[in-house]
Amino acid sequence: MFQKMREIPKRLLIAARNPVIRKNAATLMAGKMLGLLMVLGLMVMFMPAVTAHAQDAAPTALQTTQINAVNTVWTLVAAFLVFAMQVGFVMLEAGFARQRESVNILVEGIVDTCICGITFWAWGYAFMFQPGTPFIGTHGFFLQGLDPAWGGTDGLYGATGIPVLAHWVFQFAFADTCSTVTSGAMIGRCDFIGDLFYSVLVTGFIYPIVGHWSWGPDGWLAVMQPLGFRDFAGSTVVHTIGGTISLGGAIVLGPRLGRIFKRDGGGPMPPHDVILGAVGGLILWFGWYGFNPGSTLSAMDIQGIGRVSFNTTLAACSAGAVAILYTYFRTKKWDLGITVNGFLGGLVAITCPCYWVDPVGAFFVGIGGGLVVIWGLDLLEYLRIDDPIGAVPVHMVAGIWGTLSLGLLAAGKYGLPTATSADTSTVVTGLFYGGGTGQLIAQAIGSGATVLATFVASFIIFTVIERTIGLRLSAANEIEGLDLSEHGVTAYPEFEKMGNDGTPKTLEEAKALKAGKVPNAVGAPGD
Amino acid sequence: MFQKMREIPKRLLIAARNPVIRKNAATLMAGKMLGLLMVLGLMVMFMPAVTAHAQDAAPTALQTTQINAVNTVWTLVAAFLVFAMQVGFVMLEAGFARQRESVNILVEGIVDTCICGITFWAWGYAFMFQPGTPFIGTHGFFLQGLDPAWGGTDGLYGATGIPVLAHWVFQFAFADTCSTVTSGAMIGRCDFIGDLFYSVLVTGFIYPIVGHWSWGPDGWLAVMQPLGFRDFAGSTVVHTIGGTISLGGAIVLGPRLGRIFKRDGGGPMPPHDVILGAVGGLILWFGWYGFNPGSTLSAMDIQGIGRVSFNTTLAACSAGAVAILYTYFRTKKWDLGITVNGFLGGLVAITCPCYWVDPVGAFFVGIGGGLVVIWGLDLLEYLRIDDPIGAVPVHMVAGIWGTLSLGLLAAGKYGLPTATSADTSTVVTGLFYGGGTGQLIAQAIGSGATVLATFVASFIIFTVIERTIGLRLSAANEIEGLDLSEHGVTAYPEFEKMGNDGTPKTLEEAKALKAGKVPNAVGAPGD
Amino acid sequence: MFQKMREIPKRLLIAARNPVIRKNAATLMAGKMLGLLMVLGLMVMFMPAVTAHAQDAAPTALQTTQINAVNTVWTLVAAFLVFAMQVGFVMLEAGFARQRESVNILVEGIVDTCICGITFWAWGYAFMFQPGTPFIGTHGFFLQGLDPAWGGTDGLYGATGIPVLAHWVFQFAFADTCSTVTSGAMIGRCDFIGDLFYSVLVTGFIYPIVGHWSWGPDGWLAVMQPLGFRDFAGSTVVHTIGGTISLGGAIVLGPRLGRIFKRDGGGPMPPHDVILGAVGGLILWFGWYGFNPGSTLSAMDIQGIGRVSFNTTLAACSAGAVAILYTYFRTKKWDLGITVNGFLGGLVAITCPCYWVDPVGAFFVGIGGGLVVIWGLDLLEYLRIDDPIGAVPVHMVAGIWGTLSLGLLAAGKYGLPTATSADTSTVVTGLFYGGGTGQLIAQAIGSGATVLATFVASFIIFTVIERTIGLRLSAANEIEGLDLSEHGVTAYPEFEKMGNDGTPKTLEEAKALKAGKVPNAVGAPGD
Repeated sequence: MFQKMREIPKRLLIAARNPVIRKNAATLMAGKMLGLLMVLGLMVMFMPAVTAHAQDAAPTALQTTQINAVNTVWTLVAAFLVFAMQVGFVMLEAGFARQRESVNILVEGIVDTCICGITFWAWGYAFMFQPGTPFIGTHGFFLQGLDPAWGGTDGLYGATGIPVLAHWVFQFAFADTCSTVTSGAMIGRCDFIGDLFYSVLVTGFIYPIVGHWSWGPDGWLAVMQPLGFRDFAGSTVVHTIGGTISLGGAIVLGPRLGRIFKRDGGGPMPPHDVILGAVGGLILWFGWYGFNPGSTLSAMDIQGIGRVSFNTTLAACSAGAVAILYTYFRTKKWDLGITVNGFLGGLVAITCPCYWVDPVGAFFVGIGGGLVVIWGLDLLEYLRIDDPIGAVPVHMVAGIWGTLSLGLLAAGKYGLPTATSADTSTVVTGLFYGGGTGQLIAQAIGSGATVLATFVASFIIFTVIERTIGLRLSAANEIEGLDLSEHGVTAYPEFEKMGNDGTPKTLEEAKALKAGKVPNAVGAPGD
Repeated sequence: MFQKMREIPKRLLIAARNPVIRKNAATLMAGKMLGLLMVLGLMVMFMPAVTAHAQDAAPTALQTTQINAVNTVWTLVAAFLVFAMQVGFVMLEAGFARQRESVNILVEGIVDTCICGITFWAWGYAFMFQPGTPFIGTHGFFLQGLDPAWGGTDGLYGATGIPVLAHWVFQFAFADTCSTVTSGAMIGRCDFIGDLFYSVLVTGFIYPIVGHWSWGPDGWLAVMQPLGFRDFAGSTVVHTIGGTISLGGAIVLGPRLGRIFKRDGGGPMPPHDVILGAVGGLILWFGWYGFNPGSTLSAMDIQGIGRVSFNTTLAACSAGAVAILYTYFRTKKWDLGITVNGFLGGLVAITCPCYWVDPVGAFFVGIGGGLVVIWGLDLLEYLRIDDPIGAVPVHMVAGIWGTLSLGLLAAGKYGLPTATSADTSTVVTGLFYGGGTGQLIAQAIGSGATVLATFVASFIIFTVIERTIGLRLSAANEIEGLDLSEHGVTAYPEFEKMGNDGTPKTLEEAKALKAGKVPNAVGAPGD
Repeated sequence: MFQKMREIPKRLLIAARNPVIRKNAATLMAGKMLGLLMVLGLMVMFMPAVTAHAQDAAPTALQTTQINAVNTVWTLVAAFLVFAMQVGFVMLEAGFARQRESVNILVEGIVDTCICGITFWAWGYAFMFQPGTPFIGTHGFFLQGLDPAWGGTDGLYGATGIPVLAHWVFQFAFADTCSTVTSGAMIGRCDFIGDLFYSVLVTGFIYPIVGHWSWGPDGWLAVMQPLGFRDFAGSTVVHTIGGTISLGGAIVLGPRLGRIFKRDGGGPMPPHDVILGAVGGLILWFGWYGFNPGSTLSAMDIQGIGRVSFNTTLAACSAGAVAILYTYFRTKKWDLGITVNGFLGGLVAITCPCYWVDPVGAFFVGIGGGLVVIWGLDLLEYLRIDDPIGAVPVHMVAGIWGTLSLGLLAAGKYGLPTATSADTSTVVTGLFYGGGTGQLIAQAIGSGATVLATFVASFIIFTVIERTIGLRLSAANEIEGLDLSEHGVTAYPEFEKMGNDGTPKTLEEAKALKAGKVPNAVGAPGD
């Protein structure tokens, strides 16, 4: 039997090279997944006695001082706002992408959400937020056996009196954000069956496991000595992880057909609906007010939620302002795409330090966020990596900056609240505020370890998927258009496609382009 | 005088057949309605002494333990999120409809909201939520004479310490949802003056009266023995009622010109902006977080709001996942339209049982919701009923499934909270959890009675409107385009219409199509 | 040195006439602003000790009875909803404008937000909400030296126990609303560098200074004897100020090239995406639920927040209903654009009196709001003022009506809540409710003074900008298209522009149009 198991990889590779098998793989895999869903359901169907444990508590018993209605309302409303970011993401990505790949973006955004909900219920939340080892949580699969109150009724970790299911909903929306960020740099050339697979692996494994290091009650980065790694609302945990996975995918996939880079005389491919994209960006800003302030999980900390809301606002403003002005100097145009990516960079950057910095600090975190996004776009262009909407600069690069900025700009005044008083052990002081380099080093370790682990894991996953069931769309399907070939529909069926979106019309043209680097792409945001 | 009254119906029919009178009917009716608005206002203008009663209470007097600020914040924020569903609905409907009828959808959505606000203030809320008979409420017209606290300061029914006006705003948003659902299957061939009339009848009479049976303090379904009908947030009361009315309208109207069904070799007419429609679907999901969790009307029940939020999420996820996978097996395409309708079906289904089921139950409620939507689409296609966006499968069919599912999957653990403790009389146990068939029968009676009464009432109303002032757009106006003929504008005036949306170009072509069933419709979501 | 200073205006004028200098002005100014941002940041960088004062308070010390978590949650969630209005505004404006100017609307909306955040932090909040003189606040620049609780821990003015930073976030969103309203009537012919300048002046000076008169703790309108001016949520302070500035700008700019008015045989220029515009209107309605109810800054006043939410709903509904019916009588079309502007007019109007009127009053405030918007549109058309989306009627005219309506319809029952009981000194009684003309006169003084001061200030500012660095786009750039000439991109790059949006194709044609008033504009909302 072991003999048989050893042969599996070999057989898979043989099968992957067989065109007939490959053709049927998608159907097969979808069937397996449908079956898996059924089995998953039936399995837990037979354990009502076990699942009962989790919620089996009369409301009266829970209405103690530890269970706090105001905190629960705050956390849930914040969770709903974070969910609204899905609306923003799909609009941003679809608008700044070409028409031919925009339906695919919507399908991905929605299906990733569905997958995320199921895996995060089944095991993701257990891996990420429950105790276990410093590297992975090992309790609470299918939410079984959890205390009805998040953090335990004994208040051991992070307890603010909210139900564990409310905490789950909040964290589901975070996991979903990471999942959607992931797709950003992979737009337009990813086979949908490959997308399904990597989504399960990303939201089911990479995000919760690497996230556990920072946010798990016993994560090794969180409890690191002398100073623990701090990431208040997820510059690293959500955005850098998402952006890094996206980078891995973009490298494995390669650029879209017809994408010519600036050093080869081209530029980004055109967006198809700039209004849609920019409105999506504003909706993201709106949703961020759930993301950052809601991460207190407590409204009792009223100065904290006020400060986080303020810092989030100011950093977005300074980032947007610096991005449009800086770009104007370079291009003499007031660039909408860059401005949107600029304020998003500010939002990503402030996500980590929003609790610990003062207004002045927030202002500079935003300035940095706006600038690194632009420099990141330049770098990707130079490295000939095709990131259609700038997901890597916005989420990975600005996330790294924001994480490090805490070590520079933390005001040294704010400790996270506990049930009784401020927790002075969580006061963070940055280098510029007289705190030395301690926190900066901790932040660098946390950011570096997360980037490294995530990049390696995702690169391996994408490479394996590409070499087995396939990740990159076939050239014929890409020329036909991803939406038509995978989803059987275009975004605007009543309108014939017009203008040139830079895609070659034939396989020959595609090959010629690849060989000779004939510039044919037209200007676009980030141009 | 009685002689004269008996002649009215006859005269109306004669008038309706007179083309000149018919031509002027719209102007006349609009005039009457403007007059009605004025009279309505003037009437209540002269009763300040009476209306005073409702709100005439000093804040201090109300700040008792029964009047709860946290619950009020929760209910109002939830109400605002439910209102946001209007945004989602109009985007979903307009995006998945053809361009030529999309402006009409926006006008309808907005005007229905305006009518709903006025009628729900004047009499709808009184009919639905105030005591009276088991069939209709009879108190509180224009909100006069109501206790300032919903449910009474004596806490007789459903009291959670919120002001009656906050409860009104929450329930207005619900009534508005039902009203908008109604228009779904009637898209594209309904005269606007007819729409105005049926909107007043639907949101002013059908919804509040039939809704009273389930949600009125003395509604006959609610107090039915031995087990009352239970519908936590309105799978039946909002969605099945709305979807059933829509079905009645679609049958009376008949299909749009040029709509060929699958068994005749055609298929659904094309959507015009798939992105818009899918984004609208995501906004609906966002708004649903007000719809279901907010229906506790109390944030003190923190386990309840956490559980409802969780169940709503998981059911939507499992429904979306099963819908896309199941459809992939049938069509080999990853269908966006079906996926959106799938997760919406899951949301509609979980709306009734969301308070009483465990995660496993919610998972299966969603699976069922996703599947019945697809089967419902097939059935309508087979029955040659034109439902342009799938309103009947999503709201009526999934609503019925969700209502029945409570009788199967209720976990038998959760009783609604009261001021002092959990109300054990409201614990619901489903068949699969050892509760026998009692609740399932109650649910079947409630769902069946609601469907029957609503269908009969709406069919009569639509037929009478069609035979008097007219409901179906004239063929000439339909060929010109509903937006142009009724609203004098197209959705995108700078862009000429392109492509073929399946509508015949001339009356002759329309007649030939009707006679010979020439297939001319092109593929679309649900295809 | 004084000699030199006296020469500055003269030199500026000379420079402004020099084409080379003018050409470089934009670059120069952008550079200055970038520098200003840097200096601003560095400046405050060196005063951590001072800024520390503002938030330097341990959480424990603040958790007194005065610091109220529920009120803070309410205020922040409301602030987030108000921010969502930005999404609605840019969609409304872009959709109801022509394609050629829609990208510009997005850039303006976003950059104005960024500028507003920075100036409101640096000095706007100090000017508006801090004590000083009856005409301007003089404390709290960069939020330094402020009490951590809004209104002071001694509760001197408006204290509801919320942190000052939460109050800032709420008021930032208000300032941003005013800023965005401003751009409405100036759409399509404003040079972006001019826009940057006036934005700083408007959101940094006009809005906070004139706003201080009504909302500052010692504002002269607020403390006026015998009866103070009352504006609950900003019909005057936000909407009339914004609309009046917009009017000033529209007059200074003049109409867009090719805009022919009705008395010259033309009509409004066509919108480009009616769906987008109407959806934006609905999102504004959604956000208004933060704007009005949130203005209590307190959820303890549960009857108040219930009443405000109700009144806001009913006024919007009656306004929308009257607008569509009234327009139908005039045009025989069910007009979407007018309906949207109608309910927005109702929302603007109820914003001032929403706290003090009963349902009947709210109904009539809405009826008036819907009507004055239509009459305002007629008046602007007659005066040959080009207001592309109707910002002046909706915000200025309906704002004036709403402000005056308080003097007519205030129910005489509701006093603003204080920490202990209702403040009877703030009960307002209107003329129709037996209160005499006192409040009506106070409202007329407040509205009149605000309109006058705002119009004069903005007219001067716009004229000076126009005569120095330039406000009006050059005719060549307008013919090329604002989006292309200023932002280097069109809204939908894959689609070629089609149809006729009324803009002349050449400078000669533009001149001929101006001279001969050749009608070439096609129908549009408001037509």
